[in-house]
Amino acid sequence: MPVGTRATVKTLSPRILKEIGSQIILGNTYHLYLRPGHDLIRKAGGLHDFMGWDRPILTDSGGFQVMSLKGLRKITPDGVQFQSHIDGSYHLFTPEKVIEIQNALGADIIMSFDECPSYPATKKYVHDSLRITLDWAERGKKAHKLTEKQALFGIVQGGIYKDLREESAKSLIEMDFPGYSIGGLAVGESKEELVDITSFLHTVLPEDKPRYLMGVGTPSDLVINIGEGIDMFDCVMPTRNARKGTVFSWKGKLILKSARYKEDFSPIDEDCNCYTCRNFSRAYLRHLFNVDEILGMQLASIHSLYFYHDLMETIRNSIKEDSYSRFKKSIIKDLDTVLDKE
Amino acid sequence: MPVGTRATVKTLSPRILKEIGSQIILGNTYHLYLRPGHDLIRKAGGLHDFMGWDRPILTDSGGFQVMSLKGLRKITPDGVQFQSHIDGSYHLFTPEKVIEIQNALGADIIMSFDECPSYPATKKYVHDSLRITLDWAERGKKAHKLTEKQALFGIVQGGIYKDLREESAKSLIEMDFPGYSIGGLAVGESKEELVDITSFLHTVLPEDKPRYLMGVGTPSDLVINIGEGIDMFDCVMPTRNARKGTVFSWKGKLILKSARYKEDFSPIDEDCNCYTCRNFSRAYLRHLFNVDEILGMQLASIHSLYFYHDLMETIRNSIKEDSYSRFKKSIIKDLDTVLDKE
Repeated sequence: MPVGTRATVKTLSPRILKEIGSQIILGNTYHLYLRPGHDLIRKAGGLHDFMGWDRPILTDSGGFQVMSLKGLRKITPDGVQFQSHIDGSYHLFTPEKVIEIQNALGADIIMSFDECPSYPATKKYVHDSLRITLDWAERGKKAHKLTEKQALFGIVQGGIYKDLREESAKSLIEMDFPGYSIGGLAVGESKEELVDITSFLHTVLPEDKPRYLMGVGTPSDLVINIGEGIDMFDCVMPTRNARKGTVFSWKGKLILKSARYKEDFSPIDEDCNCYTCRNFSRAYLRHLFNVDEILGMQLASIHSLYFYHDLMETIRNSIKEDSYSRFKKSIIKDLDTVLDKE
Repeated sequence: MPVGTRATVKTLSPRILKEIGSQIILGNTYHLYLRPGHDLIRKAGGLHDFMGWDRPILTDSGGFQVMSLKGLRKITPDGVQFQSHIDGSYHLFTPEKVIEIQNALGADIIMSFDECPSYPATKKYVHDSLRITLDWAERGKKAHKLTEKQALFGIVQGGIYKDLREESAKSLIEMDFPGYSIGGLAVGESKEELVDITSFLHTVLPEDKPRYLMGVGTPSDLVINIGEGIDMFDCVMPTRNARKGTVFSWKGKLILKSARYKEDFSPIDEDCNCYTCRNFSRAYLRHLFNVDEILGMQLASIHSLYFYHDLMETIRNSIKEDSYSRFKKSIIKDLDTVLDKE
């Protein structure tokens, strides 16, 4: 899922996103609550109408964002009191409030409010935090009335501790959510620690419900974690890196500003069918980034998202054709290659 | 002509420009010479191929830009020595060099090198400068060999002095250019002074050659100066203003950040058929500008250029139908209206 934090996937219009192949995008509850406000979006007919996007949307719960406001927030069993990073004004997110906001935004998939401990955290802290998150999941579920319109996912927490992850997952499964998110990863732990958890949860989470690994990741992260049963991902990486001139491709990562592309009139990736690769050269993209032209950010974002979607589609097909393991082995090294290293 | 200074019309891809209705765009010789350099663009196959634009391009001569480098340039009869605004490096533009650069860029219409006096300037200064510009026009014409591929326009100078404008125009007409540009206006003089000159030149310039008023202007400037025989315009105004959130429309000028648009779910202009007006509300655009999202700049640029092209097409039709004067009277007041004034 491309990330559309503030009711826009940065630099891209909805019709370009559709052409790229985006089936669902993510919106951030915390940011939209502050600006333009969920009441305004409700009046606009919901986030789909407001931003002109008629395919599915998922909103997060704001949990991760308010936890990141170190020094500006206070966690209590009731909820989180925090100050806006924009104007310092005081706000309170409770599990019920977060559902109310997401009901107003009207996304197709919404998230329970959760506490996302930072990494590293002691087992005791993660355990206590987990109890709060489970209580919040229950309160959120009770507060959510639009169950036919919006699927509310529970968020599995528990840090890098398998027994806590198990406790979290089993309690949520008992509450019976239509889908399960795995939160609190990609926050500083190693890739091995991350896969250790997804691999473990693979055996715990129900097979017939979607599993969403929040905030992950690089192309190889996607390939690997799909093998551990993950169905859904979101990450700012393809778009954020693209805006800084770093793009992913079937052959590896490219830093478009590299001097080596000065007179390189070939596309980012000859095997890519995106608008950018069909029409523009590395030399042109390098020029655009060199002179800080917005079109460069847009063309790079188009390519990177297209590539991510293309990669996911290829993996889906490999699963259907029972060739996922072979595909994974054949591609994983290329994906992590940095093409412009001297 | 939308302005594509550095091989891109800011925030817009070529296919969007085509959809908007752009028939020809402008590139800036000074900027392209410095970055990425005309040699690189020649190697790319010319500016069309480099930027992926297969419709006509016009390049200016860099005259206006180097003259603007106050304190960083020295004018001699041979040419202009200047320092790059980027790194302070020294360069020399001569009439021949400027043709060589434009030959490399490969635009369909190119400009003679000219000195563009600032405003105000004494008659003596403008007169002496004019003699240099005429000499440069002749030297440029001699240096330009690709006459079948690129139409070289002469630039009429002479400030706000009619007799100097006449001398300039007549000398250029004698040299027989395929088109004539009017330079040195929109540099500080009043709108009345400007129209006084275009109106005067209307009777001097040949009827069967295109006339291009450089660097103009607002929607009403276009309407008025077409009445004085002008065929071509270029201006950064629609795109530059759009990127700051100010857009033009059939009903006047709008400042999209205005608080009054907070809950205004209507489009910028209900009578406009552009992608932006067909899909997005003032409230959404206001939000995008409020949170500094690039998509806002792009959607506003799409609207403003679409409106400019729409306006020009309407004027062309009014001329064909012999109703230009009526049209002008009916629209001119609306065009200059500021819609968000309290």
